[in-house]
Amino acid sequence: MSSDVLTLGLIGAGRIGRLHARHLSLHLAAADLAMVSDIHEDAARQCAAQFGLDRWTTDYREILADPEIQAVVICSSTNTHAAMIEEAALCGKQIFCEKPIDHDLEKIDQALQAVERAGVLLQIGFNRRFDANFCRIRAAVERGEIGTPHLLHIISRDPAPPPIEYIKVSGGLFLDMTIHDFDMARYLLGREVEEIYAAGSVQIDPAIGAAGDLDTAMIVLKFTGGPMGTIDNSRRAIYGYDQRVEVFGSGGCIRAENNFPNQVTLLGGDSVSRDLPLHFFMQRYQDSYLEEMRQFVESVRAGAPSPMSGQEGRIPVLMGLAAWKSYQENRPVRLDEIERA
Amino acid sequence: MSSDVLTLGLIGAGRIGRLHARHLSLHLAAADLAMVSDIHEDAARQCAAQFGLDRWTTDYREILADPEIQAVVICSSTNTHAAMIEEAALCGKQIFCEKPIDHDLEKIDQALQAVERAGVLLQIGFNRRFDANFCRIRAAVERGEIGTPHLLHIISRDPAPPPIEYIKVSGGLFLDMTIHDFDMARYLLGREVEEIYAAGSVQIDPAIGAAGDLDTAMIVLKFTGGPMGTIDNSRRAIYGYDQRVEVFGSGGCIRAENNFPNQVTLLGGDSVSRDLPLHFFMQRYQDSYLEEMRQFVESVRAGAPSPMSGQEGRIPVLMGLAAWKSYQENRPVRLDEIERA
Amino acid sequence: MSSDVLTLGLIGAGRIGRLHARHLSLHLAAADLAMVSDIHEDAARQCAAQFGLDRWTTDYREILADPEIQAVVICSSTNTHAAMIEEAALCGKQIFCEKPIDHDLEKIDQALQAVERAGVLLQIGFNRRFDANFCRIRAAVERGEIGTPHLLHIISRDPAPPPIEYIKVSGGLFLDMTIHDFDMARYLLGREVEEIYAAGSVQIDPAIGAAGDLDTAMIVLKFTGGPMGTIDNSRRAIYGYDQRVEVFGSGGCIRAENNFPNQVTLLGGDSVSRDLPLHFFMQRYQDSYLEEMRQFVESVRAGAPSPMSGQEGRIPVLMGLAAWKSYQENRPVRLDEIERA
Amino acid sequence: MSSDVLTLGLIGAGRIGRLHARHLSLHLAAADLAMVSDIHEDAARQCAAQFGLDRWTTDYREILADPEIQAVVICSSTNTHAAMIEEAALCGKQIFCEKPIDHDLEKIDQALQAVERAGVLLQIGFNRRFDANFCRIRAAVERGEIGTPHLLHIISRDPAPPPIEYIKVSGGLFLDMTIHDFDMARYLLGREVEEIYAAGSVQIDPAIGAAGDLDTAMIVLKFTGGPMGTIDNSRRAIYGYDQRVEVFGSGGCIRAENNFPNQVTLLGGDSVSRDLPLHFFMQRYQDSYLEEMRQFVESVRAGAPSPMSGQEGRIPVLMGLAAWKSYQENRPVRLDEIERA
Repeated sequence: MSSDVLTLGLIGAGRIGRLHARHLSLHLAAADLAMVSDIHEDAARQCAAQFGLDRWTTDYREILADPEIQAVVICSSTNTHAAMIEEAALCGKQIFCEKPIDHDLEKIDQALQAVERAGVLLQIGFNRRFDANFCRIRAAVERGEIGTPHLLHIISRDPAPPPIEYIKVSGGLFLDMTIHDFDMARYLLGREVEEIYAAGSVQIDPAIGAAGDLDTAMIVLKFTGGPMGTIDNSRRAIYGYDQRVEVFGSGGCIRAENNFPNQVTLLGGDSVSRDLPLHFFMQRYQDSYLEEMRQFVESVRAGAPSPMSGQEGRIPVLMGLAAWKSYQENRPVRLDEIERA
Repeated sequence: MSSDVLTLGLIGAGRIGRLHARHLSLHLAAADLAMVSDIHEDAARQCAAQFGLDRWTTDYREILADPEIQAVVICSSTNTHAAMIEEAALCGKQIFCEKPIDHDLEKIDQALQAVERAGVLLQIGFNRRFDANFCRIRAAVERGEIGTPHLLHIISRDPAPPPIEYIKVSGGLFLDMTIHDFDMARYLLGREVEEIYAAGSVQIDPAIGAAGDLDTAMIVLKFTGGPMGTIDNSRRAIYGYDQRVEVFGSGGCIRAENNFPNQVTLLGGDSVSRDLPLHFFMQRYQDSYLEEMRQFVESVRAGAPSPMSGQEGRIPVLMGLAAWKSYQENRPVRLDEIERA
Repeated sequence: MSSDVLTLGLIGAGRIGRLHARHLSLHLAAADLAMVSDIHEDAARQCAAQFGLDRWTTDYREILADPEIQAVVICSSTNTHAAMIEEAALCGKQIFCEKPIDHDLEKIDQALQAVERAGVLLQIGFNRRFDANFCRIRAAVERGEIGTPHLLHIISRDPAPPPIEYIKVSGGLFLDMTIHDFDMARYLLGREVEEIYAAGSVQIDPAIGAAGDLDTAMIVLKFTGGPMGTIDNSRRAIYGYDQRVEVFGSGGCIRAENNFPNQVTLLGGDSVSRDLPLHFFMQRYQDSYLEEMRQFVESVRAGAPSPMSGQEGRIPVLMGLAAWKSYQENRPVRLDEIERA
Repeated sequence: MSSDVLTLGLIGAGRIGRLHARHLSLHLAAADLAMVSDIHEDAARQCAAQFGLDRWTTDYREILADPEIQAVVICSSTNTHAAMIEEAALCGKQIFCEKPIDHDLEKIDQALQAVERAGVLLQIGFNRRFDANFCRIRAAVERGEIGTPHLLHIISRDPAPPPIEYIKVSGGLFLDMTIHDFDMARYLLGREVEEIYAAGSVQIDPAIGAAGDLDTAMIVLKFTGGPMGTIDNSRRAIYGYDQRVEVFGSGGCIRAENNFPNQVTLLGGDSVSRDLPLHFFMQRYQDSYLEEMRQFVESVRAGAPSPMSGQEGRIPVLMGLAAWKSYQENRPVRLDEIERA
């Protein structure tokens, strides 16, 4: 392979790790995935076999220690992200890390400082920014196709809740699920959020409530300069993944519908119908996962800035913390309240 | 004409008054519009001429005094509604009154008591309940087509703000415009709202702000039992009237798109396009105005209960007052705070 | 009523007759429907009662003889149309006549000559020209929004076949059903058809075949100057009335979808669905029936030319005859073959 | 690599050849593209470099002679297909060949006989059969979701005509462009076509007419048992690639819309709009090209029958020849007229 190709190591061979492995080994000619680590030996070995990787390990430090490996893709559990970013930065690796960096602002800041000191690129896996629908809306807002933005809606519903065991360590709805929407809100409007009001309830599964979490939420965002937005979250949409946004402004309104597996409509004796939307994120966001990884590889190769930096990845965590405080106290909470705390 | 026909008088020959005059005189065979009053002589005379009415007056009391007239349609300015309802009830007339009854709960209660004492029918002009889209959604919720409702969205945007002079006496955004959406929220879910959080801003015209009003709002509703909803209001959508709703529940999601003047799509060199939605309420809600009046006439003739009672008309005013308090104090406000006040 | 109002008589109180009666008596202030005739006494009497008409008769000649009646609306059976047009013209009445004029070109020509001699206005009831969708497409073609037309598609399917007894006297599919589409083809392109190739089959009900008719057809039209089009007909679409058109040209493509009773979409556990299209012509074309009658009344009052003249009404019959010949001989047939015959 | 992987050679490194090269080298783990040939040395070399192939040549016989290579993908010019299929079969290679096999039925039959004698698998590149929209419709027809098929429409329009030099050797519209639609018609209905009537004209570019070809066509198909269909072709749709189908039957109707680059709608001051459909076949059918090659690789590896056999590839040529005859003689032509000729 040409010396121009980026050599990578993958840390964590779970569902999302294997997705990145597929893209790096099969779809991106400029990337060479050389090694995979997972604390579960079987997972590491099977991932290596599936994608024809030469090496696998249960100790991610082998990847960090390998001088041939220029970049790492961190897909281990959230609680390991911050420390691994720090370690990888110390080893001079370029870093792609799944979202979120952490649920603790201090740990995030420590990791980001390490990245800055090392001068490496860090990209956080907010893949939805690379989705064709949302890119199109972002472009419309940037080009002024809808004038000045006034109102925003994000609808973001999952087909089914994750296991209760996952929910217990997830950071809760606002830090696990809404965090994508918090990032999307800032991305689409190109503005900062100043204040958050979060309403929430348990309407789907009492066990989620018993675990101290919510399964349904409605959140109001106030942006600098006047625009307002809402985020609508549910852990269970019976019809599958529901991922829509709308931005309304002085010059018009732009909306993204869901993506469907086909463009076929059936007129039958009872109704006009079509198949359900793409069922979950692995189908719905397949192209965006590939595109974020392609941009990671290209940014590192070109020495370009990160298309989704650590600082950008930090703010949605701040917003999630503000949302929790707002929900608990049933009042709007300014982000600077959390920042100062 | 058959004795079965309902004889009516119209009070107020402005835009909405003339709309009802058209329906009563041309479209509803069971109604006989006999007389019109307006404080402006020209308006009364022209309305009578246009729809072939036998009589007109500048004094609505002539209508109330006429023993042949069984029912009145009150379309005068809002500040006259409550007193006219009271007077008409005392005269034993059946009453259709445009929304809102008043902005003052005490005046409303006094009027409703008069109606109750007189035993007449009172229907408040929340026409949107009679719209085919919203009826379809209400039916779906009632029949359980979407299971238990969890989340609601109402988008309600006007094509252009009314004159500042009107805004000054309108009661403000929440009592003038959102009031329709407050009613729609309760209607669609068949549940009461317990708490309101209203965010608002002036993004369209500073003169609206100078008049003490808002032109843009985002409101969160909490319903009994857990569902939450939002209302999105703007005084100016450049593409015309935007009237959409969505209800999401345990068993699915149901959404109403806007109505369009035709079902035609044009594929050109630059884009795929269609004509803008129906421009404003006179076009968009034409059928619902006819249907509400048809149901008024039929309910009176059949001795049936009002399809949109005074009590139903009172609650949106309560909600509007709560929204103002919420906005002013930037906190969620429970409706019973206002009720008790 | 003002002397400006047009006084009309209705001949034939069947389904379509009563539809026009409703429009003339309830919706059109400039029209005064004074009298109705039907060979069935009950039909005439009930129609008069339903719409508050002063007079009814079983003899249409009473209408023709009445000097107060300025215009007649002919809704009797097809085989009476040509003779009645002739008689009405002799009596100096303005004439609205349901389509088709006749199935026999000679009879048509005789009727049209009588109209011309009398100098009265004749409008044939091709109501679809007054539909919002098709008007929009016609306007686009006229204004050049799609450049020069190249290709046309008309899909025109009924929800269910008429009774076999009706089919036997209907003139067959091409003269009974396709005749609307033949007119639409010429209207949309603003060009004449030169040649027709008609394929057809019996796929729905063998009794239709036994009656010498077809229930399914696919027709190719060649227009002057090169454009080509198809017409797709079925007597039974299980999902209801299907009325779509598409015109493709050098500058784009314009398409009309069906009309629906509401704009509501339901996302359920199995599919995304909406209610079926408006079921049949009485619902689907309601507005166009009103509009054609409004234009008839206005054209007569203004002394303007007919918006759908007798000559325009004659050509679709010619096309229907050509289609039958094409089907029987399984070859393309030029219209001038029929014209000369 | 595992011995289970299929080793392939590519013949022809033009646009479509490089597309297959990408899929074989980057997307299909079970395929190993070992070598490429092109009569233009540069094309062969660049293709090898781009996809990391070990070997390239200007002589396709090197590929056929290589015992390691199990299968060939023929993407050279149409006039070479039949002979190459024959040669490859003699060499015992499994064969994927771009459509059409040839324009001459005798040559096709000779090639197919060679394939049969050699007992190798032959798959013809009718990629559209592997498209999600058309697969969904085929499945609906097979499962009876629309009952018995009665009517079919295929709309198939290119964004722009190919160069005149290409048109001269293309076999003309019916054998170059419509051939895909002929195959699609049979595939969707699962029935044979018995008779074809083809109308055509030159409406886009007189140079196409001067080259003896058509640029616009409307074709009627009669299927065994009664169903009828149309194919609508244009060489230039200003809005891009237009690929729609509709099947109507006794139990309903199923339709495929175009595919779009995003699901975003913009409501502006003049219209509601969305971006144009995917522009041409490389974007529109990207997934189907990958899927057909995946199925080729899997069919060879599994010893399964061809998903698109030589016989299936022959029939659309027969239909193209019938269409030409029909157009030239302006009469319906039965396929058995051509078969017997």
